[in-house]
Amino acid sequence: MKINLNADLGESFGAWTMGEDAALLGVVNSANIACGFHAGDPLVMRNTVRTALAAGVGLGAHPAYPDLQGFGRRPMTLAPAELEAVILYQVGALAGMAAAEGGRLSHVKPHGALNNQACEDAALADVVARAVRAFDRDLILLAPALSELQSAGQRAGLAVAAEIFADRAYTDAATLVPRSRPGAVIHDADAVVAHVLRMLQAGGIVAASGKLLPTAMHSICVHGDTPGAVDNARRLRAALQAEGWQMAGLDEVIAG
Amino acid sequence: MKINLNADLGESFGAWTMGEDAALLGVVNSANIACGFHAGDPLVMRNTVRTALAAGVGLGAHPAYPDLQGFGRRPMTLAPAELEAVILYQVGALAGMAAAEGGRLSHVKPHGALNNQACEDAALADVVARAVRAFDRDLILLAPALSELQSAGQRAGLAVAAEIFADRAYTDAATLVPRSRPGAVIHDADAVVAHVLRMLQAGGIVAASGKLLPTAMHSICVHGDTPGAVDNARRLRAALQAEGWQMAGLDEVIAG
Amino acid sequence: MKINLNADLGESFGAWTMGEDAALLGVVNSANIACGFHAGDPLVMRNTVRTALAAGVGLGAHPAYPDLQGFGRRPMTLAPAELEAVILYQVGALAGMAAAEGGRLSHVKPHGALNNQACEDAALADVVARAVRAFDRDLILLAPALSELQSAGQRAGLAVAAEIFADRAYTDAATLVPRSRPGAVIHDADAVVAHVLRMLQAGGIVAASGKLLPTAMHSICVHGDTPGAVDNARRLRAALQAEGWQMAGLDEVIAG
Amino acid sequence: MKINLNADLGESFGAWTMGEDAALLGVVNSANIACGFHAGDPLVMRNTVRTALAAGVGLGAHPAYPDLQGFGRRPMTLAPAELEAVILYQVGALAGMAAAEGGRLSHVKPHGALNNQACEDAALADVVARAVRAFDRDLILLAPALSELQSAGQRAGLAVAAEIFADRAYTDAATLVPRSRPGAVIHDADAVVAHVLRMLQAGGIVAASGKLLPTAMHSICVHGDTPGAVDNARRLRAALQAEGWQMAGLDEVIAG
Repeated sequence: MKINLNADLGESFGAWTMGEDAALLGVVNSANIACGFHAGDPLVMRNTVRTALAAGVGLGAHPAYPDLQGFGRRPMTLAPAELEAVILYQVGALAGMAAAEGGRLSHVKPHGALNNQACEDAALADVVARAVRAFDRDLILLAPALSELQSAGQRAGLAVAAEIFADRAYTDAATLVPRSRPGAVIHDADAVVAHVLRMLQAGGIVAASGKLLPTAMHSICVHGDTPGAVDNARRLRAALQAEGWQMAGLDEVIAG
Repeated sequence: MKINLNADLGESFGAWTMGEDAALLGVVNSANIACGFHAGDPLVMRNTVRTALAAGVGLGAHPAYPDLQGFGRRPMTLAPAELEAVILYQVGALAGMAAAEGGRLSHVKPHGALNNQACEDAALADVVARAVRAFDRDLILLAPALSELQSAGQRAGLAVAAEIFADRAYTDAATLVPRSRPGAVIHDADAVVAHVLRMLQAGGIVAASGKLLPTAMHSICVHGDTPGAVDNARRLRAALQAEGWQMAGLDEVIAG
Repeated sequence: MKINLNADLGESFGAWTMGEDAALLGVVNSANIACGFHAGDPLVMRNTVRTALAAGVGLGAHPAYPDLQGFGRRPMTLAPAELEAVILYQVGALAGMAAAEGGRLSHVKPHGALNNQACEDAALADVVARAVRAFDRDLILLAPALSELQSAGQRAGLAVAAEIFADRAYTDAATLVPRSRPGAVIHDADAVVAHVLRMLQAGGIVAASGKLLPTAMHSICVHGDTPGAVDNARRLRAALQAEGWQMAGLDEVIAG
Repeated sequence: MKINLNADLGESFGAWTMGEDAALLGVVNSANIACGFHAGDPLVMRNTVRTALAAGVGLGAHPAYPDLQGFGRRPMTLAPAELEAVILYQVGALAGMAAAEGGRLSHVKPHGALNNQACEDAALADVVARAVRAFDRDLILLAPALSELQSAGQRAGLAVAAEIFADRAYTDAATLVPRSRPGAVIHDADAVVAHVLRMLQAGGIVAASGKLLPTAMHSICVHGDTPGAVDNARRLRAALQAEGWQMAGLDEVIAG
């Protein structure tokens, strides 16, 4: 009965701030920290690492395509060796910040378009997994449950944490309902809590159709970038604890 | 009677190539590898690390100001915490490449304007030394002999390798004669060899005036970016070996 | 009795928003629009041009050092030809947006560290003025009153609009009191209004010491990036109008 | 009997040089000048504009995806409004350089992956054409013969110059044979000349199969980035002139 909450942090850049990092650090167990390619800059990264360590939150690298202006959300096509190096670069840079602050990385979670594409494309997912393993084979790959990325991590011999999204509806193929469709995003806090508890109790993703897709679920992704998001995350955490779930680091949840 | 030769490598970027890396790897003992801020990109970095390891050449990070267009040669003014994070980021990124290739970094040498400014400005030099120590206190700081950067490294408790330049004339203050002055750069191979041997035999920098500035000298910086530079470096190496000097890694030379 | 209000606009970038552009467009007569080097991106630039045109606000280019991460506030040292090209590039890019939206640029105002340095350094100021003139000799240079930049514009034969700051205290040398000193920034709306009216009535900058520095004053710089700043700007505008000042474009104010 | 030769120029960046610009300026009639997003920097752009004007070579903007590290060769997916602004930005920036040097742009030719995608994708091609028209409806769009980009330019009411490639084999669909296939690139100078003359005489693209695809052909694209490329271009120009073709600007060739 252990579960993890994760969120994307450190998404400010230079003079621009984004997100509710301070508040989220009081809610989540694991932080996916931007590495400078889609968001974050060296100082933001170091400060995020420092505050996450102080809050006892696990450190994860959140590598992305080199696309600051597009926030890493624009699909790109990089050659495999290029992409592997791009991921290594970012993970290394964040690991440097962790070392400087006396901590170490627990996991890696790809960001944005890179994550989306790696969930669908097995070859691309293998590149991601290979980069993580090349850097440190003890790192956990945080990947959407039932995705190609999850499979790639397992093929690579990595520990993989399976993630579900607290506020998104699922298709019968275990993919997210596109934001353009009605009901894709669950805004109401009670509905978010109910959605997550239903899945945890059922032992799998519950699609919008009601279909159950059995899967391990180690971590729940929450957000801090929309109004009310942090409150929803807090309520979810409280509800999980009320139901007897213990908040834990990714390694503990995986160890089960 | 051990000495080290170092050179800047990995200065290609994307579609643009620069330098004679393959040739230099057969000459030098230590490589200062660009980290993506003034030159280098993730793939260039990884390939440079791989070939340097295969050649038995020591890996050094060559961090710079964030100035790709200016090749890190334009003076900048970064706040201390910002600069420290900028250096950490780059060293971490290169260390990631080293880890992926089964190696590890031996040293750090700042690049261009950052190096120049850190040689004159003690406070700036302290920031550089602090960043290196924060990342890994076993890294060697490669710094110009008799510079503020050398002193800062010693203050920080780092092992410091003192560097001299094979093809540059020195002032009585142990700084390089500005390129704008006649005789600042030594082009003739015989003159380069004579210049270096004179300094090693005298136990210090021999300024253009003839004045001797006693100092330890652990490494000699050579270049590969001008016509004939690699040949000069090869001839210098041969001449040093003929005089009984043994080529060695920075750690061995420092250990003496 | 004509006066101009100007403000920096279009400082968002990609996923990051900054400033109260919509509100400021209802207050100011001239917009200094970021050109992508310190802030702004092509889409932000085009949207800002479009909304400024719709609001009848004059379009100005706000070129900066190439320093997105530092928001153009970090001093840099570019060779004159390089800097001139960097400014031309940005002015041209914004002029392209203006052309696409059926408008044209009225003025250029350097941003951040470039502006600060050009106010003190005559040679640098000449480079800025030369770039503006090279692009279009009918553009107005918007420069701090009594600065080297103002002089450079005049030397270059450009129309120059002299600017004062609504919320900053001045030294006896007509420079801004550094932010680190008490009283450097005037926060209270009544004090801002009084400060501006006192200078306009006296016909010059009134320094913190009370000393009068006579100068033409064509435009007043207001801000939208701090809480209350837009309200202060609105109150200043209302107060100026109540005193009989007519809000006008830079060209009209200069024409007198 | 008028024909135009065009080539990509100004592809150096900062400390990195690329291409044989000086030699090519003596061969071609029209230059496609990189605008800083895939290559070129402000100073390179200005110098390229200046030397092209001095050589009597027509100035064209060569806008690309924002991808310096990938040289604009990596496919990207930008929203239409974003892409339109990205193109406008680059065309405006180069037009600013032209204005500063007393010239003006004659044409626009998209670069790399943007060009490739716009040749196949009508909706994307419409965005490119819209951007060009928005900036200046008198600009010529230089587009591969029989491509979607050519059609889009015509739909937008632009003057379109149809381009063929001197050293590439064509499919029956008027697209380039992929470089991965044998015979895709024609290296031999005599074969290049024969290929071009055959097409000009036949009044259309002659595919590798021998099939004739009738089309107007206004300009021939040559390269300067491979060994022997400039020599090939020189020989092509001489052969064309020997056959009675007159070298001309794009506007003259289109006017017929």
